Amino acid sequence: MKIALAQFNATVGDIDGNTARIIEMIGAAREASAHLVVFPELAVFGYPPKDLVRRKDLVARNADAVASIAASCRGVTAIVGYVEPDPAGAGKGVYNAAAVCADGAVVASYRKVLLPTYDVFDETRYFSAGAAPVVVPVATDDGPVHVGMTICEDFWNDRQFEGRRVYGVDPVKATVEAGASLLVNIGASPFVAGKQADREAIFADQVRECGVPLVSVNLVGGNDDLIFDGASFLVDSTGAVVARADAFGEELLIVETSRPKPNALRVYPDRIESIHRGLVLGLRDYVHKCGFADVVLGLSGGIDSAVTAALAVEALGADHVCGVAMPSRYSSDHSVEDARWLAENMSVRLTVIPIEDVHRAFESVVSSEFATAPDPAPGIAEENIQARIRGNLLMALSNKFGRLLLTTGNKSELAVGYCTIYGDMCGGLAVLSDVPKTTVYELARHLNVSAGRPWIPQRTIDKEPSAELRDDQRDQDSLPPYEQLDAILELYVERDLSVDEIVAGGFDRATVQRVARMVDLNEYKRQQAPTGLKVTSRAFGTGRRMPIAAKYR
Amino acid sequence: MKIALAQFNATVGDIDGNTARIIEMIGAAREASAHLVVFPELAVFGYPPKDLVRRKDLVARNADAVASIAASCRGVTAIVGYVEPDPAGAGKGVYNAAAVCADGAVVASYRKVLLPTYDVFDETRYFSAGAAPVVVPVATDDGPVHVGMTICEDFWNDRQFEGRRVYGVDPVKATVEAGASLLVNIGASPFVAGKQADREAIFADQVRECGVPLVSVNLVGGNDDLIFDGASFLVDSTGAVVARADAFGEELLIVETSRPKPNALRVYPDRIESIHRGLVLGLRDYVHKCGFADVVLGLSGGIDSAVTAALAVEALGADHVCGVAMPSRYSSDHSVEDARWLAENMSVRLTVIPIEDVHRAFESVVSSEFATAPDPAPGIAEENIQARIRGNLLMALSNKFGRLLLTTGNKSELAVGYCTIYGDMCGGLAVLSDVPKTTVYELARHLNVSAGRPWIPQRTIDKEPSAELRDDQRDQDSLPPYEQLDAILELYVERDLSVDEIVAGGFDRATVQRVARMVDLNEYKRQQAPTGLKVTSRAFGTGRRMPIAAKYR
Repeated sequence: MKIALAQFNATVGDIDGNTARIIEMIGAAREASAHLVVFPELAVFGYPPKDLVRRKDLVARNADAVASIAASCRGVTAIVGYVEPDPAGAGKGVYNAAAVCADGAVVASYRKVLLPTYDVFDETRYFSAGAAPVVVPVATDDGPVHVGMTICEDFWNDRQFEGRRVYGVDPVKATVEAGASLLVNIGASPFVAGKQADREAIFADQVRECGVPLVSVNLVGGNDDLIFDGASFLVDSTGAVVARADAFGEELLIVETSRPKPNALRVYPDRIESIHRGLVLGLRDYVHKCGFADVVLGLSGGIDSAVTAALAVEALGADHVCGVAMPSRYSSDHSVEDARWLAENMSVRLTVIPIEDVHRAFESVVSSEFATAPDPAPGIAEENIQARIRGNLLMALSNKFGRLLLTTGNKSELAVGYCTIYGDMCGGLAVLSDVPKTTVYELARHLNVSAGRPWIPQRTIDKEPSAELRDDQRDQDSLPPYEQLDAILELYVERDLSVDEIVAGGFDRATVQRVARMVDLNEYKRQQAPTGLKVTSRAFGTGRRMPIAAKYR
Repeated sequence: MKIALAQFNATVGDIDGNTARIIEMIGAAREASAHLVVFPELAVFGYPPKDLVRRKDLVARNADAVASIAASCRGVTAIVGYVEPDPAGAGKGVYNAAAVCADGAVVASYRKVLLPTYDVFDETRYFSAGAAPVVVPVATDDGPVHVGMTICEDFWNDRQFEGRRVYGVDPVKATVEAGASLLVNIGASPFVAGKQADREAIFADQVRECGVPLVSVNLVGGNDDLIFDGASFLVDSTGAVVARADAFGEELLIVETSRPKPNALRVYPDRIESIHRGLVLGLRDYVHKCGFADVVLGLSGGIDSAVTAALAVEALGADHVCGVAMPSRYSSDHSVEDARWLAENMSVRLTVIPIEDVHRAFESVVSSEFATAPDPAPGIAEENIQARIRGNLLMALSNKFGRLLLTTGNKSELAVGYCTIYGDMCGGLAVLSDVPKTTVYELARHLNVSAGRPWIPQRTIDKEPSAELRDDQRDQDSLPPYEQLDAILELYVERDLSVDEIVAGGFDRATVQRVARMVDLNEYKRQQAPTGLKVTSRAFGTGRRMPIAAKYR
């Protein structure tokens, strides 16, 4: 049997655009004599659709689109993810469904049984759950193959989720018992560094149990905070992964299931390269899907802005990236030098706007009021003014030239609030806000190795990090060493461990308490942070929902 | 039977503080010879707990707290909402539960059956659903009363929800069939203007069906965006509401169910007064529960900042409110005059900081770059610079003096993006961000009538609204008249109608399309907006989750 894995980059809500591309890919699959072409979860509507699925007009248009896809579907069977309206409007009124299209009609529709509602997923908010397996015969040269349908979470099936069973039913088992001789899983499974190995292990494990081969087709592309990495794959009946599509790119991978070619088994990139490629894809898609071509960002001479600039240049092209250096009286000489070096190295346009005059004007207008403060000595308030002057300048350039502003802060500083709200936190997309500082360094070294030259200036990598908002300031004056900080943050934020549990792992109690307290108290900043690209198992944003006005330790 | 309705203001995560207050109120109920004292949903943990319920240490502490509450509970039966850990860690690992405490022990625990997962609610994200009714005999002077437990949504029971059945089970019916002679509902039902009438109608309707009286105890107090309005009530077996606690305040209301006193039936305030009192409560609790005593806000001389100031003075006291007027070259004379008049009228300290010098300094540093723009004529970029200078000044004062910054924008402008991100959108709490502009006017007039004097200056109410970011600017140059805008926004945002459906209601198509487009395109601003107090059926924020990088109309 010849299967086309249509690893497709859908745009949320762009029903016309998604449909046109789906019809085009069905045509290409038929041209290649595929018997079956499989699209990802909610390919017609885009994933995650969020509250757009509550819009009846959009759901109706998506249902019409499926009818038109089916009408155009001849000589090949297509499986297409869409939002299926419930005929009686029962329950939530819609299902997360897969239409089987053949001979000009929708011949079956499978409704997702397991609806993930944790981390970034809210599917019980939106969808009624299906209950019945769907197995459909697909004609091949060797007679019909009985294709059993599943959608994403149906196959994750809770066996690895936080170590406990969450669901009481097993749709994979039900589908096999209904007579499937080939399992299909259509997914929209977001990228997390290291997750592909889990995906394949969990999926293959179930294939080995039931002895039925599996085609798993994943969405690819960025939609807001989520990066879908594709890497769709085919598991033979022994549980071996015998074909794998590219990660982080659209692809129509055509595989003869009985004799998959070795070159259909692409290597999934290693951890740091997967983060690199994920961020490039997420950045490019966010900018383009928001209707922008160009970005602007502040270049401080530091590591975060340098790595963000490198990713932007790769994603959009140097002509579409504009850097701005905004030195102050506290900026070191090397700040602007390193920004210039970086911009020249990357052929990025650099604008230099010293902030001293504006800074002085601000100091002058607040001086008499500040003199009445309980503690008039310069501190956080004075530092933040500078960061917010820079935020204002960057937004002014963004507004005037129609360039989306990229935020350059990393996860470590966002976690502990070592950043200025309305200052360096300004922007439409926070490229590195789920990348811990230690990983930013790793990424910088990796980018230089990949480029085969010092793409990011070595001095930027080597120098001690500083916000340069007062004389001789260094991050390490306010924070534990980043290796220690990131290790604690991983346990506290990603794994939800308590202070006691973290201390039991060998960390200093006072440091852990201090870090946990900083994380808790800075929730208000994160709730006003720009969308950030998720690369870890728990990013700030939609996957971590914390109260602000709360008392807990 | 004598019942104490313990309408309690819980703080999320403050398990020690909540527990101490609960034990105190149990004591007061026993003093008053109550047989039963009923606390709201999740009284021990606070509602909504959000991802804090994933913290095993906090769940364990909340379970210990229930044990200590039970140990102290003698001579009266107490029903207390808490997070119940599943003994086997199955499913989500925890239940939204009600402990029945008597004679020093937890004698039963009821697990919420219907878990709301729509609007601001995410309960299937966190909780496993219960399935079994719990009916407990409570000793009274006339023998045992069989008390049947329900929690919040169990009683809403989908009959009015968006016109369709969402749940397939009916826990109220099951509880009555299990022998309840008195129904208890413990809730955390957030305030929405007009909702109390629905609550009482829906609850009473079910009482009439089953003939069993009901005690409904609701949470009170603000927790982030949600305001809980209390107004707990008692429904007799004929379906009549015979007792009602105060709205928007803590109360231990003690009622003899066989002969409730007339003064136990408080009047629920009318619509505009309910919004007024709700906002005051929400503002006060947000500020205090975040650990602040004082607030600062910009006073532009306009209606939004005037109403916000009035609410802040009522919530916190004039000594805890500081106004800042920041006139520019475009400010009318009456702007600062009206701000001064307002501040004096309310005995609020006013600081005046003209922004001209800073504004000129900004213009000077961006001039050469701006001259290269495709359209160098002054526009949005130049206007936003001024708003962001003001945002920076307000945040500087907030940081320097430890005063929480209140944001003054209304729902209409947030909906269409008629506001500056990092400018007038700066702040910790957006007091009016769910109040449409027309309701802001209504509120201003209402505040003046309530005060019996022109508390808000009449000129502020009468003058044409303007952002004053360029010469002769008026809101109505950029927006449809507010009456029309607000009517369209209610249909588009609150009721999720499509453009076609709104036009069918008699609105001009071009205007509706323009408004809908503005709403859609400004989602990026709203996702970085401060927490806002919810007063309508659909507020921006946690109850409305839209994609940004999306294409839809």
